[in-house]
Amino acid sequence: MSVQPVLINGTWHPSQGTQTFQAVNPATQERLPEVYPVSPWSEIEEAILAAKRVFAETSTWSGDRFAAFLERYADRIDAQAAALVALANAETALPVEPRLAKAELPRTTNQLRQAAAAARDGSWLRPIIDSKANIRSIFGPIGPVVVFGPNNFPFAFNGISGGDFAAAVAAGCPVIAKGHSSHPGTTRLFAVEAHEAARETGMPAGFVQLIYRTAHADGEKLVSHPAIGATGYTGARETGLVLKGAADRAGKPIYLELSSINPVVVLPNAIAERGAAIADEFTGSCLMGTGQFCTNPGLVLALAGPATEALLESVGQKFASAPVGTLLGEGVLKHLAAGITTLRSAGAEVVAGGATGGGKGFSYRNTLLKVAASRFLKNPAALQTEAFGNSALWVLAENLDELMQVLETLEGNLTGTIYSANDGSDDAHYNRVAPVLRRCVGRLLNDKMPTGVAVSPAMNHGGPFPATGHPGFTAVGIPMSIQRFAMLHSYDGVRPQRLPAPLQNKNPTGQLWRLIDGTWSTGDVTA
Amino acid sequence: MSVQPVLINGTWHPSQGTQTFQAVNPATQERLPEVYPVSPWSEIEEAILAAKRVFAETSTWSGDRFAAFLERYADRIDAQAAALVALANAETALPVEPRLAKAELPRTTNQLRQAAAAARDGSWLRPIIDSKANIRSIFGPIGPVVVFGPNNFPFAFNGISGGDFAAAVAAGCPVIAKGHSSHPGTTRLFAVEAHEAARETGMPAGFVQLIYRTAHADGEKLVSHPAIGATGYTGARETGLVLKGAADRAGKPIYLELSSINPVVVLPNAIAERGAAIADEFTGSCLMGTGQFCTNPGLVLALAGPATEALLESVGQKFASAPVGTLLGEGVLKHLAAGITTLRSAGAEVVAGGATGGGKGFSYRNTLLKVAASRFLKNPAALQTEAFGNSALWVLAENLDELMQVLETLEGNLTGTIYSANDGSDDAHYNRVAPVLRRCVGRLLNDKMPTGVAVSPAMNHGGPFPATGHPGFTAVGIPMSIQRFAMLHSYDGVRPQRLPAPLQNKNPTGQLWRLIDGTWSTGDVTA
Repeated sequence: MSVQPVLINGTWHPSQGTQTFQAVNPATQERLPEVYPVSPWSEIEEAILAAKRVFAETSTWSGDRFAAFLERYADRIDAQAAALVALANAETALPVEPRLAKAELPRTTNQLRQAAAAARDGSWLRPIIDSKANIRSIFGPIGPVVVFGPNNFPFAFNGISGGDFAAAVAAGCPVIAKGHSSHPGTTRLFAVEAHEAARETGMPAGFVQLIYRTAHADGEKLVSHPAIGATGYTGARETGLVLKGAADRAGKPIYLELSSINPVVVLPNAIAERGAAIADEFTGSCLMGTGQFCTNPGLVLALAGPATEALLESVGQKFASAPVGTLLGEGVLKHLAAGITTLRSAGAEVVAGGATGGGKGFSYRNTLLKVAASRFLKNPAALQTEAFGNSALWVLAENLDELMQVLETLEGNLTGTIYSANDGSDDAHYNRVAPVLRRCVGRLLNDKMPTGVAVSPAMNHGGPFPATGHPGFTAVGIPMSIQRFAMLHSYDGVRPQRLPAPLQNKNPTGQLWRLIDGTWSTGDVTA
Repeated sequence: MSVQPVLINGTWHPSQGTQTFQAVNPATQERLPEVYPVSPWSEIEEAILAAKRVFAETSTWSGDRFAAFLERYADRIDAQAAALVALANAETALPVEPRLAKAELPRTTNQLRQAAAAARDGSWLRPIIDSKANIRSIFGPIGPVVVFGPNNFPFAFNGISGGDFAAAVAAGCPVIAKGHSSHPGTTRLFAVEAHEAARETGMPAGFVQLIYRTAHADGEKLVSHPAIGATGYTGARETGLVLKGAADRAGKPIYLELSSINPVVVLPNAIAERGAAIADEFTGSCLMGTGQFCTNPGLVLALAGPATEALLESVGQKFASAPVGTLLGEGVLKHLAAGITTLRSAGAEVVAGGATGGGKGFSYRNTLLKVAASRFLKNPAALQTEAFGNSALWVLAENLDELMQVLETLEGNLTGTIYSANDGSDDAHYNRVAPVLRRCVGRLLNDKMPTGVAVSPAMNHGGPFPATGHPGFTAVGIPMSIQRFAMLHSYDGVRPQRLPAPLQNKNPTGQLWRLIDGTWSTGDVTA
């Protein structure tokens, strides 16, 4: 049995570990042939010490050098697109077209290139110059970063190619990637390209490292190690909270994307005006990718009544007739089934679906649930259980006061959406709903479903706990996502020639935006 | 016995608590007459629920309204300056002149006014507009904020008047202040003025609340309560870490300022060039305020040799002959004595001082310690013990390599300072020292002592753990300190008239800086 090597300290070498694992094709439920190692602590420690040595070398580098690596890496990914798509399809059952080939892969290289542009133009540095006091500040890299990728985006959130990786590198941080066990082959392919790109662009050995799997206790030691600057984690809530506990105790920032049910409020006159269109939009958004999006609309709030009942019935028919997709794995299937059981035990009724099967491989019928708001209010914690996958719960309130009570019970979420009539007839309701929703979500939407997460500088893919660990940061959107891996550096009375170039009087590129004595400018400091 | 009331939900009313405490005049070691309550959980919960109600009302307010309160409050403080200074002097033994009356009080009202200006001009909002995708983001208030003030700045870091308070209010957050038990009377005077200012400027009842003391377990419940947005804490490391644990487990941001020994590296040719001046600067900085500054230079690194020995001897003479100040309280004295015992047990030798007494009331002789770097490296954890007060440890290295090894062992600190020769002859050394120091401190200084913390937009009063809880934030410097109490709000496809004014196409003031499609501008969006 040949076990895949790990990428540590600049070389691919055999793992010291004795345990192994294999991925499973979710569509066939068969094991894939490649065998991957579980890395022991000795190996993880070697990676940490390598990252520490690298950071001592790169911490003063200018952004161009990281940009060159990111751009070369993006080009190499493009050249390997066919292989990546084929392997990711085998490991995740996500469709080749359009999902993997036309959407997620281009998005991934686009993120890497946007991160490169930010590393080059310094838009994340936020230089502030107080010329009178000669105090100057700028963001710098926080140190070696650990990235744990999730199962649901094998490219765009992969530990060694996704948004956290791109942001950490753009900040100038070496990365130790921990691949997700459900798609190790895809992750390995990325690591091969990352390693080659790093060599081609002169990055020190160990700038990018990969391990596939560790014991949970070693994961805790990793994120809390003194040499680690910060961690990015996207994945299951339970595991994330354990890592958060370890990192927090060591005073190490950890950015988490844990769970979100993404409430959608559909106001009554929007239903009257365009109920059919809303039914289509909701169904498309909720079932896309078999519902396995962080921003999947899992909770809908509406006022009870004939129009809403008719809308719900129509959505139920669409759910029943839509093809049932394959889930990412057995774990996702079990988690979804358990979540739906919890919701039903707490009083949710099945409108459509509600049972395992219906599709190829690991699958669960497209499931629509409903519950009266009065019932929801009796057990809001259970009825906010995330049933990650192709399911949603509709909550029907007798009146707006009751709907507002439901909103007041909601935990932090990534997104909150309000559909309202175009003629303004829902505006009084909107004005009550929006401020309450605003306080518990990172992104507020009008009249569109939340599953599209544009890589825009104004995006917030974040929100209050438990959606994430801190509501001031976003995982998507450049340059803001880079801030997570940054440390504030102030220079007080430091001699001019010793300042980093972006803080010297002369603007290093003539294009870098700097806040000079209260004014944003691309000019020089005229002292 | 008349017990002082607490300020909760907009009124001063008797505490429900049965336990009480009194402050002690550190100079006379006598109890002060006023009696203050320990608030039970029922009372704290009342404050939390009031803050929650207030936030529901104020979360959509524009910055002007918070600015009006802050400005009115600053004016009222100025009018009460004499009473505040007299009481703070009695409670802390900090000198009336220049410290309390000429330095700290003006700094406090200056901070409040700078925070007001930021609330008014929106410089902390960082609006980002992606006009093509119609996604727009801005920072908003994080929710009710709890502020724990420390003992060492009765004005400028007071829970109800200091930097955290000012920043939280500027962000639009209601504040529950927890006064420090060593200066409850000063805190009460501030609260009286804050309450009146709040009434005069139409803030809702409960916008500013005050409790004096709680059981530790209730403090943990407070910072982790679902209705709390974030906490600011400045104080002892042990207590701070307990609060951090509670807040972290609940996913609530907590900003801590815990401990810092502020390493100062004095390079050899700087000593040759201006040793006498450095001895004066160091002594002044280290003994100022009886050494009770967060940025007190507690650790000095230099190369061993005759010039350094002479410098150290000269500093020792200055320490011995300088007046010994009064410490803030018995707790500080005990902590200082214990810290010096720890340092001595680990091998530090006394050059000057090293015993209790020498001044009025609670005092400890100005204490200078030294240790060989080789000895330091045997127990770097113990030899980094913060001996908060009028003491410092000099570490003498045989050569730069050894000095670098010492630097590599340092924990996170607020500041790091390098003195080097003006003629450039230390520059090779500087270039090795600076990057290593840079990675472990928030503020890097050249050729001046770190105790001056200017309220500059480019200041960083922060640094890696354990100096603070997150190296990306600063507690001093506006608008950056306001970011700590902010949550990122993205608006995706939200209808124009529903956007907050700073995100609408028209620049609301014509002066607000916004990042529009990649360019900072004070103009309108031209779509």
